[in-house]
Amino acid sequence: MKIEGKDCRALWFEDGTLKFIDQRKLPYKLEIYTAKTVDDVAFAIKDMVVRGAPAIGAAATYGMVLGVNDLKNTAEKLRKTRPTAYDLFYAVDFMVSKIKDGGDALDAANNYVEDLIDRCRRIGENGEELIKEGMKILTHCNAGALATVDYGTALAPFYIAHRKGKKFFVYADETRPRCQGLLTDWELTQEGIDHAVIADNAAGHFMKNGEIDMVITGADRIVSNGDFANKIGTYEKAVLAKENNIPFYVAAPISTFDKTIKSGDEIIIEERGRDELAIINNCKIMPDYTKVKNPAFDVTPAEYVTGYITEEKITKKLE
Amino acid sequence: MKIEGKDCRALWFEDGTLKFIDQRKLPYKLEIYTAKTVDDVAFAIKDMVVRGAPAIGAAATYGMVLGVNDLKNTAEKLRKTRPTAYDLFYAVDFMVSKIKDGGDALDAANNYVEDLIDRCRRIGENGEELIKEGMKILTHCNAGALATVDYGTALAPFYIAHRKGKKFFVYADETRPRCQGLLTDWELTQEGIDHAVIADNAAGHFMKNGEIDMVITGADRIVSNGDFANKIGTYEKAVLAKENNIPFYVAAPISTFDKTIKSGDEIIIEERGRDELAIINNCKIMPDYTKVKNPAFDVTPAEYVTGYITEEKITKKLE
Repeated sequence: MKIEGKDCRALWFEDGTLKFIDQRKLPYKLEIYTAKTVDDVAFAIKDMVVRGAPAIGAAATYGMVLGVNDLKNTAEKLRKTRPTAYDLFYAVDFMVSKIKDGGDALDAANNYVEDLIDRCRRIGENGEELIKEGMKILTHCNAGALATVDYGTALAPFYIAHRKGKKFFVYADETRPRCQGLLTDWELTQEGIDHAVIADNAAGHFMKNGEIDMVITGADRIVSNGDFANKIGTYEKAVLAKENNIPFYVAAPISTFDKTIKSGDEIIIEERGRDELAIINNCKIMPDYTKVKNPAFDVTPAEYVTGYITEEKITKKLE
Repeated sequence: MKIEGKDCRALWFEDGTLKFIDQRKLPYKLEIYTAKTVDDVAFAIKDMVVRGAPAIGAAATYGMVLGVNDLKNTAEKLRKTRPTAYDLFYAVDFMVSKIKDGGDALDAANNYVEDLIDRCRRIGENGEELIKEGMKILTHCNAGALATVDYGTALAPFYIAHRKGKKFFVYADETRPRCQGLLTDWELTQEGIDHAVIADNAAGHFMKNGEIDMVITGADRIVSNGDFANKIGTYEKAVLAKENNIPFYVAAPISTFDKTIKSGDEIIIEERGRDELAIINNCKIMPDYTKVKNPAFDVTPAEYVTGYITEEKITKKLE
């Protein structure tokens, strides 16, 4: 991705330290957070300096580099930071195994991250073929470079198409409650991709009026029958896309496919706290008496999905 | 409606002045705004001390009472305040005609407002029959007492059912960009009706999981073929209700039916400024560079409507 015109990533290793774009400050301020120790990395993951499961995994590999002299404690510290993030455990285990096999820690971490970025880039190249000149495309939440170190998943086709000189327009759902649409807005602004943020309520209106030609979202988990979990509101946009005969694509690496679960009905949806809805950018927007219900994710049945864009290909069916 | 346990209205005439619940301050603070002159009333309408077309019309009738000694200038001042509000013109014309016929201005205004409230109460009584014990019902925006002086339209069935002792639960969509769901939250809290505010993105999730049994919204305009315009996001919720076989009702007085327009396609949707999305409760939640598209209303085709709840009856077809 670009930041102020220069190529950049969500995190990178430099002079023996791990640097992060501080995502707690975005989109309001661009600040770099420098982690010099394992504890600094653990804090960065826990306090959401870095977010997005793939980017958290990447951060953990470099955390293992910083703590290579005490592998056991380092692995334990990192595993405790975000206990539900699957990529985090995978990355820590990957590093433990590579180092035990006598590999160089920094080489292993670099390989892990380059492989991750390469998969995202290939998702972008596959998805780019769907983008026709002049298209208007809706995305939900932020499945962008910030969440995957570079390119992203749902945003990867936009990066590739833009760099090939294609002209298109992106509608970015605000994505209440956490407004991750503003991170998408930030990324697309940095890259110079033409776009606008809309209230989540407005997506249906634009679809009905023929102003959206395609929808691309990311996915947190895709199960055996093709149902998938993603940020709350994804299901709404998928139903509206189908009702208006608009193709709806899910962009995700192969590692997102979970064959241990048969159907989306088995996915348990996390209910999160009221402050996510009640407070934005440190500002209280709901009175203290307001009670909320705040499911963080929803499940979209496979019937609403036109295709899955992976690093291998675009496919309608899981294989 | 109730405020702190006492019966109250959105506005009322008292000791020669017009008192308003100051809706600019809600839901964060309860303050009364007192209008002593026509200019005060004009300011209240213009600056959104009062909102909702029926309530604005009601305010205008009392504005005519305060300015009865200079009818022509009073009518002109009031008409200029919110030039797109149909009820405002209707109310001013009603008062001019009554006063010219020799009627008492205050009596005429009181009659206008009591008639309005009576219609809302009857919408409530008709709609109340749809509410079964234990139901969970979704509403969008605020079509409540604040917008119609008392009872509201979509919320009127809730007031009546609650006062009859029925138990039910209301899901109130936050209703971005202006978050009028917080006004619904305030009204239902004052009345003691069990409810929660949800992100607009979450309504589909709750419908799919069988947690919503019925949807009731208001309408800004209902045209000949039954299509209707209402707050942005209404169309989304209507499509989702149909997809999940959930009845979707529109509550509105007969005066909302506009037979001069054939189909919803002819309704022009107002695009409003970016600050509605970018600022909440005086707090900037979007960076200055963020571009938005902000349609204020959408059109829901009649095919998604189970029935229209008016002061006369519940009907599927316009007559």
